[in-house]
Amino acid sequence: MASHTLNDLFLETLRDIYYAERKIVAGLRKMARSAENPSLKEAFETHRDQTEEHVERLGQVFEMIGKRARGKTCPAIEGILEEASEIMDEFKGAPALDAGLLASAQAVEHYEISRYGTLVAWAKQLDLGDAAALLQETLDEELATDKALTALAEEAVNYAAKEAA
Amino acid sequence: MASHTLNDLFLETLRDIYYAERKIVAGLRKMARSAENPSLKEAFETHRDQTEEHVERLGQVFEMIGKRARGKTCPAIEGILEEASEIMDEFKGAPALDAGLLASAQAVEHYEISRYGTLVAWAKQLDLGDAAALLQETLDEELATDKALTALAEEAVNYAAKEAA
Repeated sequence: MASHTLNDLFLETLRDIYYAERKIVAGLRKMARSAENPSLKEAFETHRDQTEEHVERLGQVFEMIGKRARGKTCPAIEGILEEASEIMDEFKGAPALDAGLLASAQAVEHYEISRYGTLVAWAKQLDLGDAAALLQETLDEELATDKALTALAEEAVNYAAKEAA
Repeated sequence: MASHTLNDLFLETLRDIYYAERKIVAGLRKMARSAENPSLKEAFETHRDQTEEHVERLGQVFEMIGKRARGKTCPAIEGILEEASEIMDEFKGAPALDAGLLASAQAVEHYEISRYGTLVAWAKQLDLGDAAALLQETLDEELATDKALTALAEEAVNYAAKEAA
């Protein structure tokens, strides 16, 4: 038990988000295929490409701490993506589909924002400056994606869902 | 399928967060019992009380739209709380326990921030001004809690986890 330090917690959380990011790549691919609004489809595709880079960056962080890149089942992302699948099934062909997909994507973003925020703080505490900088890059991209999705929701997607109601 | 409008999506998401908030009350009770740092324990207790108010507020929103308050299983919160339980079991008595609990609580907050952000936007689109205002109150409290937890992490909890390492 004495070995369960902040180093261990950092490594465990790194494995959690590594697993999650790879699931998110697949999730975004599915969401891009389902989305009807072309801007939303494009936003999902762009973020899927970005997410692939995030996976690579995590690989670099594992290297920095001398550990093999390995995921650990993340029940949180499983649950969040399960809800996204429910929406895709239930609202398929319905006017509110895009609004639901967009909300699901924002739930994904917020999970990542919370995990990367934590990892950046811990990396700093552990004097892992290079890892902190790399994780911060991803955190900034997740925050920007969430903001872009909010703008898209307000401008187009929610409005369309209401008009069609 | 034509009935799957933004109104339906709003109601469904309201049921999702109603289920989640009630699970979070129980989760925070468990986390408050597990936390070792007195400030963290207190933060969890305060937020548990607040969460009970959030449940009541959701009851009022259901009333406003003429629907019975009823939850719908939310796999996302199940997964997020399952991860919190894993941390509590695995890091019990370990120096990094509090840092792990705090990170789990922030994952919970971010799920709520994403859902309430969405609900506020949809309530506005649907011209449900009173519901939007009530949901915004809760959103503001979730944002404030997340900020307070970040401050607590930086000031005390992560530092203690590292010192004990």
